[in-house]
Amino acid sequence: MVLEAGGRLGPVELEYETYGRLAPDKGNAILICHALTGDAHAAGWDDRPEGSLREYRKNKPGWWDEVIGPGKPIDTRRFFVICVNVLGSCYGSSGPSSINPATGRPYGLSFPVVTVGDWVRVQVMLLDHLGIESLYAAVGGSAGGQQALELGLGWPERVRRLIILSAAYRPTAQGLGFNSVARNAIVNDPNFRGGDYYSGEAPLMGLAAARMLAHITYLSEESMGHKFGRRLKGKSAPDFTLTGVEFEVESYLRHQGESFVRRYDANSYLYITRAMDYYDAAASWGDGDLAKAAGLIQARTMVVSFSSDWLFPPELCRELASAMCRAGRPVTYVDIPSRYGHDAFLVEAETVGRLIAGFLRR
Amino acid sequence: MVLEAGGRLGPVELEYETYGRLAPDKGNAILICHALTGDAHAAGWDDRPEGSLREYRKNKPGWWDEVIGPGKPIDTRRFFVICVNVLGSCYGSSGPSSINPATGRPYGLSFPVVTVGDWVRVQVMLLDHLGIESLYAAVGGSAGGQQALELGLGWPERVRRLIILSAAYRPTAQGLGFNSVARNAIVNDPNFRGGDYYSGEAPLMGLAAARMLAHITYLSEESMGHKFGRRLKGKSAPDFTLTGVEFEVESYLRHQGESFVRRYDANSYLYITRAMDYYDAAASWGDGDLAKAAGLIQARTMVVSFSSDWLFPPELCRELASAMCRAGRPVTYVDIPSRYGHDAFLVEAETVGRLIAGFLRR
Repeated sequence: MVLEAGGRLGPVELEYETYGRLAPDKGNAILICHALTGDAHAAGWDDRPEGSLREYRKNKPGWWDEVIGPGKPIDTRRFFVICVNVLGSCYGSSGPSSINPATGRPYGLSFPVVTVGDWVRVQVMLLDHLGIESLYAAVGGSAGGQQALELGLGWPERVRRLIILSAAYRPTAQGLGFNSVARNAIVNDPNFRGGDYYSGEAPLMGLAAARMLAHITYLSEESMGHKFGRRLKGKSAPDFTLTGVEFEVESYLRHQGESFVRRYDANSYLYITRAMDYYDAAASWGDGDLAKAAGLIQARTMVVSFSSDWLFPPELCRELASAMCRAGRPVTYVDIPSRYGHDAFLVEAETVGRLIAGFLRR
Repeated sequence: MVLEAGGRLGPVELEYETYGRLAPDKGNAILICHALTGDAHAAGWDDRPEGSLREYRKNKPGWWDEVIGPGKPIDTRRFFVICVNVLGSCYGSSGPSSINPATGRPYGLSFPVVTVGDWVRVQVMLLDHLGIESLYAAVGGSAGGQQALELGLGWPERVRRLIILSAAYRPTAQGLGFNSVARNAIVNDPNFRGGDYYSGEAPLMGLAAARMLAHITYLSEESMGHKFGRRLKGKSAPDFTLTGVEFEVESYLRHQGESFVRRYDANSYLYITRAMDYYDAAASWGDGDLAKAAGLIQARTMVVSFSSDWLFPPELCRELASAMCRAGRPVTYVDIPSRYGHDAFLVEAETVGRLIAGFLRR
């Protein structure tokens, strides 16, 4: 396939999971779109290949298991649920760590640049393959919300309801800045070697730094204060160490970095953050006018933000909802008071679940 | 000297500058306290040794030249102004890049851990040396504000007015987190070599990453949006590059990182951020009760915050002012509406200058 940025990719592999049964009229399908470092394993339990990056899911439920399943808000007794791993990821769909059939070696940075539009286009190709003309709904948070929005804009006849959580129709300058610092940390790791590191040491230090930084942006000042405050790690007085751990928050962030590098590929981090950065629904679909873009959407839409999210802040979600109003499109906007920052869309599963269940009933 | 954390340091060198003349009664001295990466060169123009880290000041005025000078808010026709480089810095006072007389080589990480209390104690020793019993005022922003506060708490009889700008009486968990990620980037740079890098390549990549990250926290989302938005750097369409520069904000942050490493020492960054992190005026002086601590202050105090500062947010400044009220101490609190984030204490020089001049007149 020819990609939005001009590159070519083929063959294209897609990893996806489904839950529930597709109705005879194929009208009960819901597409779940995952966030930056997520995967197709949204619900239930499964075994993962030993030794692969995906092994971290072993003995863990899918990333949205609280929301998807029999009797759950996205009820798999009623709906056929699909979750697709995005292009560029390291969890099964084609990405920089996949083998390039032309060389027999991992693509590395020769993997073409992918965009949110490409992610969605291959998901639509999958819908074609499954014979699903129109989704009952598309649901996603963060980068997943970008995908749901893109689907509603680019393929309006393919989806009847959109649920967009904690998503930026275009990331802020501050968000671009954080991603830029994170990518720099990866690229400047001496093990990065131009992205061609698969046969040796991977740039784990750079990737850990990127994750630690990003993790701060997923929480809020309030939640960090509540969770860690200024408590020391396992001691009542500081050791006065420059390079060691003094505070609990330091220990927590290091742990986040260390566990992340065991399950994620540094090149994928570059590709996926870039795709998120490039995303600008107003520019792509409305010549810079978000209301003009929003007029393309046919689906009934629910936009949800969380009060303490400062990565994709409520203002951005309100702008999207307001643009839909101006375009005369049906939209429900909810700002949920929460101290959990950007992570709230996953943490506040009960509240989010109730909202989703209600919206899907309509 | 024996330091607060238990280490010993000697001989202690201090670099300081003075502006104006000390009055015969020595009652007109104002101490200016600098921030994280600042130096003693607060005002005027001077020549700096070629090739040293301090060369960056060449052909540039002091860092607070808009506020300090003849006829300026801190008027050197009336006041004798002193600015001292903090211990642990790389700009003249003893620090990790200084030569350890015991070994003839730079200290590196064998330099003892220093605290805000130590910074202030050597400044009080300097006041003794200059014969100044009581300062007319102590003024500082950010880490400089921590020093001014510490002086008022620990040596209440030595200062008659305090002006504390954009300062945290204790940094937040989020602030600790950012500093921790920044230090990790330095320590994990392969050139760091346990801090013993002075005879070879310095950990410039790690230091640049630390600075880029910190720089985002000095700005606000609004100011970054205003300054850069999502504008591309010198092009009208993206190049779709993963490792290159696409957006202006990326270019700006890289430039900030690159120019910083030419003027700053990575070890100093470790020491000074740690000192700031450890600072907790409530714990040190009030057994955790900020009002109890505030009761120690004798000086008339002005606390200034800036509305969009999210590194040392207005809430922290308000807590300090409120604690002084509860302790029955005279305090003026001003929150300045500004979009410039933490940097506002330097950027909003005119507003800050007017406030300072007014407060000093009383």
